[in-house]
Amino acid sequence: MGRTSDARDKILGAARALIELRGYSALGVAEICKAAGVPKGSFYYFFESKEALALAVIDEHWAGQERAWKEVLAGEAEPLQRLRRLFEVTQAAQLAGQRDCGTISGCMFGNLTLEMSNHTEAVRVRLQEIFDAQVGMIDAVVAEAFLRGDVTVADTWQAARSVVAQLEGQVLLAKLYNDTQVLGALWANCLALLGARAPGEVAAGL
Amino acid sequence: MGRTSDARDKILGAARALIELRGYSALGVAEICKAAGVPKGSFYYFFESKEALALAVIDEHWAGQERAWKEVLAGEAEPLQRLRRLFEVTQAAQLAGQRDCGTISGCMFGNLTLEMSNHTEAVRVRLQEIFDAQVGMIDAVVAEAFLRGDVTVADTWQAARSVVAQLEGQVLLAKLYNDTQVLGALWANCLALLGARAPGEVAAGL
Repeated sequence: MGRTSDARDKILGAARALIELRGYSALGVAEICKAAGVPKGSFYYFFESKEALALAVIDEHWAGQERAWKEVLAGEAEPLQRLRRLFEVTQAAQLAGQRDCGTISGCMFGNLTLEMSNHTEAVRVRLQEIFDAQVGMIDAVVAEAFLRGDVTVADTWQAARSVVAQLEGQVLLAKLYNDTQVLGALWANCLALLGARAPGEVAAGL
Repeated sequence: MGRTSDARDKILGAARALIELRGYSALGVAEICKAAGVPKGSFYYFFESKEALALAVIDEHWAGQERAWKEVLAGEAEPLQRLRRLFEVTQAAQLAGQRDCGTISGCMFGNLTLEMSNHTEAVRVRLQEIFDAQVGMIDAVVAEAFLRGDVTVADTWQAARSVVAQLEGQVLLAKLYNDTQVLGALWANCLALLGARAPGEVAAGL
């Protein structure tokens, strides 16, 4: 049983690494099993299909990211400072990935949205749920900031979605130019999108 | 000679449609030729490789989009109104695509950036040139707006890049939710990112 679950983890780990490197469509089950060091026959014992594996990789990745986002966004700091921390953590994670493999892999959810959402309905639905959750988590912090008078934007959900869009767009450019410096613009842009009161003061944590 | 160039156009057209639907990696040369209705043997007469075809598809798509952007951004209207028009044109194009094939295909350059930039250096370089050109075209309009006192942002190039990032991010979400309404946020967000003077007035064209 220990060995069995070990094989599943190996397949998941190999699939995740390969998907981050080369996307989903270009991969075959045989290649994933070879990279995982497990016999191809055992693949279908754990996963019904390559699509089921993709969903498991997505779920696992989101479980980790959701935990990290919750930790940052539910902290003690003032609401906008928590958002700032989220961007810093994102930039640090992309930089760590670049150090490990030479290139910025970007956001797995953004990558798979553009690659898969139009032809794999189950993946589209799962990714929608994840982006909804991201927007919801940011919305909660923006609403807090609004109640404190730190931001002027009234439709906090719409604003939170624009912050997520800005994050995805900047991560896309960071990947294209293989340069995490691009992500340095996220904080100032977030303040602008939220109509932050006197951005200079908020930025300084005053 | 007429028939020869016709075959090249057919291959290009089929490849473009298939790439928009399913991305690049999932496609094979045989499938592209079948969709184009040309014998597989003729493919390598026109294109050295599948990668060379991808570059030709990108170049052709950019030639059309660059023409459209120039037309909109070099118009007679006030600078920010031209940017607004660019977002309207983008939303209309995505809506037309959705009507044609049921789903929003998104931005071909964004799609290929996330799918290909990390493992096809020639494509990365070409896409960088295209995004540089897009930022440059928006930068020129923002600089005009700055000189008129319509926007407060001083680093117009950086602001233009953030506008492009917002565009890519919102198009990604529009594709994910298969809903062009998402793109309605672009104009207000652009004004926020540029630090537009009295957005209400600018929005009303005053």
